[in-house]
Amino acid sequence: MTELLDLSTSDMASQIASRQLDPVDVVTGLLERIDQREPRVHAWAYVDRAVALADAKAMALEAQSGTLRGPLHGVPIGIKDVFHARGMPTLANSKTMDPSAIYEDSGVVAALRQAGAIILGKCETVEFAGMGIPPQTRNPWNTQHTGGGSSSGSGVAVGGRMVPAAIGTQTGGSNLRPAAYNGVAGLKPSYGAFARTGLLPVSWSLDHPGLIARSADDLDLLFRILGPTSAATPESPANWRFGILRDFFFETSAANTVAVVGVALDRLGGAGVQLADTPLPALFSAHAAIHHLMMSTEMAVYHAPRMDRHADTMSERHLTLAQAFSLVPAGYYLQALRARRILRDAMLPLFAEHHVLVMPTTPAPAPEGIESTGNASLLTPWSLLGFPAATIPCGLADNGLPLGLQIVGPPGRDDLVIQAAIAAERVLGRLDLPA
Amino acid sequence: MTELLDLSTSDMASQIASRQLDPVDVVTGLLERIDQREPRVHAWAYVDRAVALADAKAMALEAQSGTLRGPLHGVPIGIKDVFHARGMPTLANSKTMDPSAIYEDSGVVAALRQAGAIILGKCETVEFAGMGIPPQTRNPWNTQHTGGGSSSGSGVAVGGRMVPAAIGTQTGGSNLRPAAYNGVAGLKPSYGAFARTGLLPVSWSLDHPGLIARSADDLDLLFRILGPTSAATPESPANWRFGILRDFFFETSAANTVAVVGVALDRLGGAGVQLADTPLPALFSAHAAIHHLMMSTEMAVYHAPRMDRHADTMSERHLTLAQAFSLVPAGYYLQALRARRILRDAMLPLFAEHHVLVMPTTPAPAPEGIESTGNASLLTPWSLLGFPAATIPCGLADNGLPLGLQIVGPPGRDDLVIQAAIAAERVLGRLDLPA
Repeated sequence: MTELLDLSTSDMASQIASRQLDPVDVVTGLLERIDQREPRVHAWAYVDRAVALADAKAMALEAQSGTLRGPLHGVPIGIKDVFHARGMPTLANSKTMDPSAIYEDSGVVAALRQAGAIILGKCETVEFAGMGIPPQTRNPWNTQHTGGGSSSGSGVAVGGRMVPAAIGTQTGGSNLRPAAYNGVAGLKPSYGAFARTGLLPVSWSLDHPGLIARSADDLDLLFRILGPTSAATPESPANWRFGILRDFFFETSAANTVAVVGVALDRLGGAGVQLADTPLPALFSAHAAIHHLMMSTEMAVYHAPRMDRHADTMSERHLTLAQAFSLVPAGYYLQALRARRILRDAMLPLFAEHHVLVMPTTPAPAPEGIESTGNASLLTPWSLLGFPAATIPCGLADNGLPLGLQIVGPPGRDDLVIQAAIAAERVLGRLDLPA
Repeated sequence: MTELLDLSTSDMASQIASRQLDPVDVVTGLLERIDQREPRVHAWAYVDRAVALADAKAMALEAQSGTLRGPLHGVPIGIKDVFHARGMPTLANSKTMDPSAIYEDSGVVAALRQAGAIILGKCETVEFAGMGIPPQTRNPWNTQHTGGGSSSGSGVAVGGRMVPAAIGTQTGGSNLRPAAYNGVAGLKPSYGAFARTGLLPVSWSLDHPGLIARSADDLDLLFRILGPTSAATPESPANWRFGILRDFFFETSAANTVAVVGVALDRLGGAGVQLADTPLPALFSAHAAIHHLMMSTEMAVYHAPRMDRHADTMSERHLTLAQAFSLVPAGYYLQALRARRILRDAMLPLFAEHHVLVMPTTPAPAPEGIESTGNASLLTPWSLLGFPAATIPCGLADNGLPLGLQIVGPPGRDDLVIQAAIAAERVLGRLDLPA
């Protein structure tokens, strides 16, 4: 039973489709595993056992009669608790949300259901997926450490093998950071690639629904379901050029991270990937200031009207930020938008020479404690620019926790990033969670 | 000679193309007329006599040998002095601008030249086409009155028969107001329809390059040159339904304006046009506040960085506005953008019942004096929403000054507005400037 629960999303989907695997066994097994593991890691905000089992039974019958709803028929998926899903509360780790409110499916959930997925439950999040208080979620590799965030539960649920894939979001580093910290794959697609209807916003100019899954193949499968129908047909990554971003990304990473990612890149080079260092434009240094101003200002605009009614139930941290950034002059905000356009134009030429860019996903593995969800500094540039970025596990740090290799492509070319991640995963392998 | 100088743009273009008319005679005649009339009306910021004559001579030779550069071959056009044109200064009625600066053609000017137009000169404008000081421009119908603004010179140059067509801009009411005040036709196209490269911005979310010309046919000709290549093919306006906006547009107009426009609508009805009153959604009342906040804030963002260097040469009026609105919080601005989207959604259903909407262009004719360029209140709603709007002359007020009929269509359907203006002009006729 253990083995089937450790399957990738793609393998689970194909074994259900070929009737080697019964969705009822999958859901029953995962619910048992959640019973065992959840008390230590707190990945789930809500699990709908009865509905998940009923769905599994219906889909098992359908599969037996040869009817598949779509490419995810019978595969359980976890959803970050900032997306609405029919029949489930949306709490966003905030006491301001009404647990009895009734919602329709968000765009992402509707597309997953259409493809046959079973929505297993809602995954824990940092308050409003922003800069508020983190959940009680802990890293399954070492529960003394954070599972990352803000898609904390999505990362830990997949990393802890409680579900083969989960949906997260990334506005700064919220999707790829928990994927990397938990030793699994993740994708923040191009800005606008996935539907944002029914998603509570942090900063609408920067919010990206994203994927966390066991393998890079799963990113491909899920992107075909959630991505634009006009997406490019994947090319073969044979003879692709990978540009290594030493500036900033390696320079600000821990020595041990640099060493582990360096070994991984050497293995890729040994397997025939063309690797070359590539410098960043000087303007790149502005990215963090632009990102912070845009994100905080839009967050404040969304939450400021709620402050009066909900001041007593908002966390101090969230309330303070919403108050402070509601005073930002419009000119600062508009100059930040303008600076982003200029930076984007300065960055695009990197892709004339390289198919994708590679760098560490985080400067260090998951930090100890759960007060902080870790460092997002290597991820925010791509959230700001809207370029697609993936992470795959690339080794263990000297404290035994996973590290990720981040792969970035030009906007709209999610296919390049996903195919590069698949190719790199073939060389580097996946990580197994220690028993 | 007088008659040829009073030709519409379309008639002048076709007579040049058929060699009935020589571009040299046209330019010579117009320059003489400018010599006579300009000292009383101050329409022109810059006229390039030598280049215009040289262009005319070259194009006369080409026409004689059967070569036409495009549909405007040899036709002189005036350009509002906020668009850059090669070989001419851009002053924008501001002492902060450098008269010796060298510019490339703006997108609009380049497209006109490509079509064979002769750029006769730059037309006077209110300071930076915004809320600053007006130029010395006066109305050729009665020089005690304003010629409108901010495209003051474009309106007066066409209305004063010193050029058959001119380019203006509209952010509030700056293109259709001077067209109506000077008894000629005008078009503010759908937002984004004409290129804004090489145009000094007022408020980039609201700025529309526009047309002022002798007849509605000219709007059609010029729109085909400057508009998107994907624009819809014009349909025939037979049996079209015109919705009359009594709310606000007639309610806030002077009794005499209501009477004159009412007579014009009766004539259209008598000619077979289907007319029916149609109410505005309640939300419409928010339009002025949204427009003012967006326009002033974006204006301040553009000009605030120039305040330090140029405070001594900026007008007090412009400087005060730029200072005040640079303090608007980003949240107010972003809520205004959101409110605009909601208002737009509330307004679009009007076009399910009516092909176009009709109303006065201004609540009264051009006011006395040149301190104010008049009332833009009936024009700003369409600048805010980006819907295409045209004006044609529809009669004279009891003080002998022209009044306009405004025709508005759904976004992207400039063809409906232009064809409706042509059909209405056939019924109402054009106005002749008294000698």
